[in-house]
Amino acid sequence: MDLVDCYKKVRRRTEQICSPLQTEDYVVQPVVDVSPPKWHIGHVTWFFETFILKPYFMGYQEFNPNYNYVFNSYYETVGNRVIRTDRGNLSRPTVADIYQYRAYVDEAMAKFLCEEPSSDVKELLILGFNHEEQHQELLLTDIKYILGHNPLFPAYSADYVSPKVKETDTAFIKMGEGIYEIGFEGEGFCFDNELNQHKVYLNAYGISPNLVTNAEYLEFINSGGYHDFRHWHAEGWDWVNTNKVEAPLYWHLIDGAWHNYTYHGLQQVNLNEPVCHISYFEAYAYASWKGLRLPTEFEWEAAATKFDWGKNWEWTESAYLPYPGFAKAPGAIGEYNGKFMVNQKVLRGASEVTSPGHSRVTYRNFFQTHLRWQFTGIRLAR
Amino acid sequence: MDLVDCYKKVRRRTEQICSPLQTEDYVVQPVVDVSPPKWHIGHVTWFFETFILKPYFMGYQEFNPNYNYVFNSYYETVGNRVIRTDRGNLSRPTVADIYQYRAYVDEAMAKFLCEEPSSDVKELLILGFNHEEQHQELLLTDIKYILGHNPLFPAYSADYVSPKVKETDTAFIKMGEGIYEIGFEGEGFCFDNELNQHKVYLNAYGISPNLVTNAEYLEFINSGGYHDFRHWHAEGWDWVNTNKVEAPLYWHLIDGAWHNYTYHGLQQVNLNEPVCHISYFEAYAYASWKGLRLPTEFEWEAAATKFDWGKNWEWTESAYLPYPGFAKAPGAIGEYNGKFMVNQKVLRGASEVTSPGHSRVTYRNFFQTHLRWQFTGIRLAR
Amino acid sequence: MDLVDCYKKVRRRTEQICSPLQTEDYVVQPVVDVSPPKWHIGHVTWFFETFILKPYFMGYQEFNPNYNYVFNSYYETVGNRVIRTDRGNLSRPTVADIYQYRAYVDEAMAKFLCEEPSSDVKELLILGFNHEEQHQELLLTDIKYILGHNPLFPAYSADYVSPKVKETDTAFIKMGEGIYEIGFEGEGFCFDNELNQHKVYLNAYGISPNLVTNAEYLEFINSGGYHDFRHWHAEGWDWVNTNKVEAPLYWHLIDGAWHNYTYHGLQQVNLNEPVCHISYFEAYAYASWKGLRLPTEFEWEAAATKFDWGKNWEWTESAYLPYPGFAKAPGAIGEYNGKFMVNQKVLRGASEVTSPGHSRVTYRNFFQTHLRWQFTGIRLAR
Amino acid sequence: MDLVDCYKKVRRRTEQICSPLQTEDYVVQPVVDVSPPKWHIGHVTWFFETFILKPYFMGYQEFNPNYNYVFNSYYETVGNRVIRTDRGNLSRPTVADIYQYRAYVDEAMAKFLCEEPSSDVKELLILGFNHEEQHQELLLTDIKYILGHNPLFPAYSADYVSPKVKETDTAFIKMGEGIYEIGFEGEGFCFDNELNQHKVYLNAYGISPNLVTNAEYLEFINSGGYHDFRHWHAEGWDWVNTNKVEAPLYWHLIDGAWHNYTYHGLQQVNLNEPVCHISYFEAYAYASWKGLRLPTEFEWEAAATKFDWGKNWEWTESAYLPYPGFAKAPGAIGEYNGKFMVNQKVLRGASEVTSPGHSRVTYRNFFQTHLRWQFTGIRLAR
Repeated sequence: MDLVDCYKKVRRRTEQICSPLQTEDYVVQPVVDVSPPKWHIGHVTWFFETFILKPYFMGYQEFNPNYNYVFNSYYETVGNRVIRTDRGNLSRPTVADIYQYRAYVDEAMAKFLCEEPSSDVKELLILGFNHEEQHQELLLTDIKYILGHNPLFPAYSADYVSPKVKETDTAFIKMGEGIYEIGFEGEGFCFDNELNQHKVYLNAYGISPNLVTNAEYLEFINSGGYHDFRHWHAEGWDWVNTNKVEAPLYWHLIDGAWHNYTYHGLQQVNLNEPVCHISYFEAYAYASWKGLRLPTEFEWEAAATKFDWGKNWEWTESAYLPYPGFAKAPGAIGEYNGKFMVNQKVLRGASEVTSPGHSRVTYRNFFQTHLRWQFTGIRLAR
Repeated sequence: MDLVDCYKKVRRRTEQICSPLQTEDYVVQPVVDVSPPKWHIGHVTWFFETFILKPYFMGYQEFNPNYNYVFNSYYETVGNRVIRTDRGNLSRPTVADIYQYRAYVDEAMAKFLCEEPSSDVKELLILGFNHEEQHQELLLTDIKYILGHNPLFPAYSADYVSPKVKETDTAFIKMGEGIYEIGFEGEGFCFDNELNQHKVYLNAYGISPNLVTNAEYLEFINSGGYHDFRHWHAEGWDWVNTNKVEAPLYWHLIDGAWHNYTYHGLQQVNLNEPVCHISYFEAYAYASWKGLRLPTEFEWEAAATKFDWGKNWEWTESAYLPYPGFAKAPGAIGEYNGKFMVNQKVLRGASEVTSPGHSRVTYRNFFQTHLRWQFTGIRLAR
Repeated sequence: MDLVDCYKKVRRRTEQICSPLQTEDYVVQPVVDVSPPKWHIGHVTWFFETFILKPYFMGYQEFNPNYNYVFNSYYETVGNRVIRTDRGNLSRPTVADIYQYRAYVDEAMAKFLCEEPSSDVKELLILGFNHEEQHQELLLTDIKYILGHNPLFPAYSADYVSPKVKETDTAFIKMGEGIYEIGFEGEGFCFDNELNQHKVYLNAYGISPNLVTNAEYLEFINSGGYHDFRHWHAEGWDWVNTNKVEAPLYWHLIDGAWHNYTYHGLQQVNLNEPVCHISYFEAYAYASWKGLRLPTEFEWEAAATKFDWGKNWEWTESAYLPYPGFAKAPGAIGEYNGKFMVNQKVLRGASEVTSPGHSRVTYRNFFQTHLRWQFTGIRLAR
Repeated sequence: MDLVDCYKKVRRRTEQICSPLQTEDYVVQPVVDVSPPKWHIGHVTWFFETFILKPYFMGYQEFNPNYNYVFNSYYETVGNRVIRTDRGNLSRPTVADIYQYRAYVDEAMAKFLCEEPSSDVKELLILGFNHEEQHQELLLTDIKYILGHNPLFPAYSADYVSPKVKETDTAFIKMGEGIYEIGFEGEGFCFDNELNQHKVYLNAYGISPNLVTNAEYLEFINSGGYHDFRHWHAEGWDWVNTNKVEAPLYWHLIDGAWHNYTYHGLQQVNLNEPVCHISYFEAYAYASWKGLRLPTEFEWEAAATKFDWGKNWEWTESAYLPYPGFAKAPGAIGEYNGKFMVNQKVLRGASEVTSPGHSRVTYRNFFQTHLRWQFTGIRLAR
């Protein structure tokens, strides 16, 4: 597929994700980590305008100079911006205004891409695709939060199909002691945080071929796991008690039966599904209660060809740190990953809302330890 | 005008106020005191449904039982409700849903009012009209805040006409020492907080026939009034410093010239207009800087027939307290005023966005001392 | 008694109050409103040094120039100061240092007062006595808080004698409608907030000759008063729920029996004593539950010669506002009262820890509506 | 040295550290991370009483049952406790009470240790020694904070001698690629977090033989390092701006010259000393500004025999995580380390206030990334 087609395909998918929304659903920000859908669709457009059209497309005229202030996410290099907590306070630009902005930028990009771009631009373009795919995932995640925290619990779309998990053996996969190669190497796109490929020494370990299910997690709940400090980090224990956490996000106990909010609305919890929407603190506590532990990201990557993954992002025990030889790109693009490499945990795999083809075995996602609005799950190691 | 026509007229005006809005403008809540317009139009509808249709209209079927949870403002008697800070997090019910709700309730009300209502219902109906008029004022106030805090500073409506202030003498009106009658007495509607009429003894005093203008207030700013603790209450001084307040709300210093946001967008400050959107703390500090003071609400009421009022709500020195013999109504309606009678100041008069005919000389508005989003101004006394 | 003797007597009493303390008790500040005793004894000394010795005593040499920073309470005129929340973080100056400071200032004052002071100085001196008496009351109040919030509940002093309340009739005193004179007039000391004497028109009212007792207040608790929103201001209801208030400050339910911390340690609640250590919100709610109300400060003052008072400060319904003709003194002394006249309630009377002779029928104390560490009680009106 | 002598020596050193203090210095807690000295000396005593005397010394009678509540630090297993922020609010038990408690426990320990203890007890005893040594370091650290944040800047002790740093070559030490053994192995005491010894694969790297000096750090300050977002983590940048950080803790710019608070009082910054009292965020930013990086804890340990350490705790890039095979001890002692293994960074080495013989090359200290009150410094790697 050529670049223009790739561009169109990526852009179209973003709009398809939003097609079931009402105008009002685009606007709200019920919690700081969730951005309004209209902000996402403006921001990914701003990314192409700011990093490709403005510097490389001679004669390009900016759509609206105020949009830089509105749609910059966190790039200090690119100037001031609406503070993150205020994104949900903006009624303007309207959803229609932003779709117009998209159309305007798409038209300019189509013209610009008529001629074969330089390799620099190609690299930025592919970064832009991957960036928009990351926001597609965030869009689905944030839409779930917006609708799932509405007292009316509206469904997102009857057409949404959740992927099935393959059934498999329960025996832990055995991995031998020794040196493993970790990180990306070869052709194709990767993020800077997957570099450099390097050697890691691992002790012998076992890793589960399956994710922990809702049925298994319910045992933890029912046996008082949320009320037994012994399984929790001190910081996790504070978090549980301050927030009075009793179950995964989206779970509601209704007339004695656990329900959870899904893209089809409120439903009874499916016991065979992997448990989802838990914090690192909960993942750790569950593993501790089982007398097991979470894998490191290296253990995960070394074994990843031996099990099925891609349903939930999986918490690892690893802190998000630079690989040996990690170097930031110059300029604003250098702010993409490096500045977040502190006080976060690595997640590996991909989730049911990850864009197709977006992830790979070396891919590193990362979140703070208390966050639950992503599709996060648990794989055990020993 | 009969009750049905009154009902229709009040309801129509609410919709006219909202007609210049985009759907997105109905949704956001940029600060806790500002409610989303769609919440206002749902809430005033809920008021008629809850206090008239459900108890008095036999066979009335509730539009949607969840709406009680969504549109209850602060009536503890009527059950749980969305917490106030969360109103801006709700994308559903949509604006269209809420207009449908209005139509449904309006139709039922029209049917119900075919027959002459009892005097109890009539009283509630008139309270409902006054309640909706209060929310009309809040709608205009909140819309100004929503648009005036958007980085694009969109205008509300080119058709909006701001009332003119009558020019007048500058000599203070002299009022003699003695006993004055304060509070409402007679036919017609009043709120419970205007009762009972009672005697108050006042010393001789003078009161200005004019509101303080922007030009006068600028002298206070330019002479360093915001940086001189001597004019401020201790609590006001904390507020100024914590919030780094330098001018009234909506004022922006652009290239050395003061501008303020108006319903027509950002404009240079009109020096002849009364100063507006100031807190009680600022009103008090201004008066102190002038060597004068604010009037009490009793001084204001006793002199109110002698000057022109109705452009800005006017801060008084009086705390919001019950009049002698004040009694709450039984049930939910009793929560209307009494429970707010602590730590607030009384404002007298009316503002440019008060609904026509809504105010009177005995009307008591009230706000906390740091609030500025209302159309608040200053009249001096000595 | 001459001025030197008065000075010595006031100063001695402060030290007597502190004599049962351990060094450590002088240091801590368990909550922002409570100041460490060593701060009090330094601050009252600083008052004489700053307002009398430094401006009026030729050749006086300041004890330590850093002490101005440490012991200034809230006088903006006199320069920067340790922020109030940090008073409990200071281990130096030590208690011994501060007693040395006291001795140094006392010696200088004794020399200075050898010669008859000017009338300006006399006025400041008498203000200084009254100021120190106010801090004597605060010392006793703060010591109770410090010891009463220690998990060991140490007694303050076995020698402390609590005053008895006179038993009396229960019939409400009847007061006629008409004009009353309110405020201080005549010879002797008063604070600026008691001026000017002025006329107030009161409707006929009744006022209880007795304070509400613990037995009566327990009925309110036992009938669910803390859980019934109808009796509370909206702000009071938030306060009750946020702070999970279930009883007056210092009350503990131990094995089914209510105890309270006293200067003699933890004891069973004496049912015949007046209820004490309640917020305005609780006083208001209790009165509402009884179908009665609190008196205004004018009603209290007009009737005060007809009942016994002085056991507890009594909450009134009146907001703390300036009397007609109120004028601040020039300079730092002008910060004494005026800048607190917003968002506070007036208390009348005196408490068991008020210094002898310190209060009078026109005396106005004031606190914020949520505070309970003072000896506050309830007298009802109708 | 036998166990009794060891015990006495450790206990005596704690008291020597406190000997220059005034009673008041024992009491205050100016910030949550700093505990009052009297709490430290009670807590280390409680440790021996709770984990040795009560379970193992037949017939031992607890000194005061309330002390468990007062002196438990964070052991959930052992029951409720004073919340950490309240430690500075306790005037009782007094300093004298606590020294009596120490004497009581010391006497009981001396009796108990007359007979050869079991190996279980011996292990606890040695843990108790190491625990008390950790608190000796904290005592000195906290005392510095208490006195260094007092507006009078009192010296701790004229006798305090700061260790000299050895001068050395500036060439980076070269370390080859390969497998290294990390963690404790062999006889003698270590903490559970130093186990198990395991293999780590390291790329070739260079590490500085010297700590970064004040002179070098001043270049970073003077070149605007605190105002250039490019060198900071996003979370570090927020921290710098929220707290308006401009220099290391204890630094004050006085008449154009940088001073810092030391145990001898306020002094001009010694340019040849290693920079101290900086957060991880600052260490990282400095390294980034230099075009270098911090070492991982593995790189540090592998090279540690080749350079001089022990002046400052050194921030590493490593997150504090369990080693392979890490296992918590059963019971309360198991809460010692494991529950803190999230969102903290590892520090290696030792500081000038570490107790003699307390540290070793495998020792792992850990703090949150914003903390500066420890003696923290920077060693660079590449």
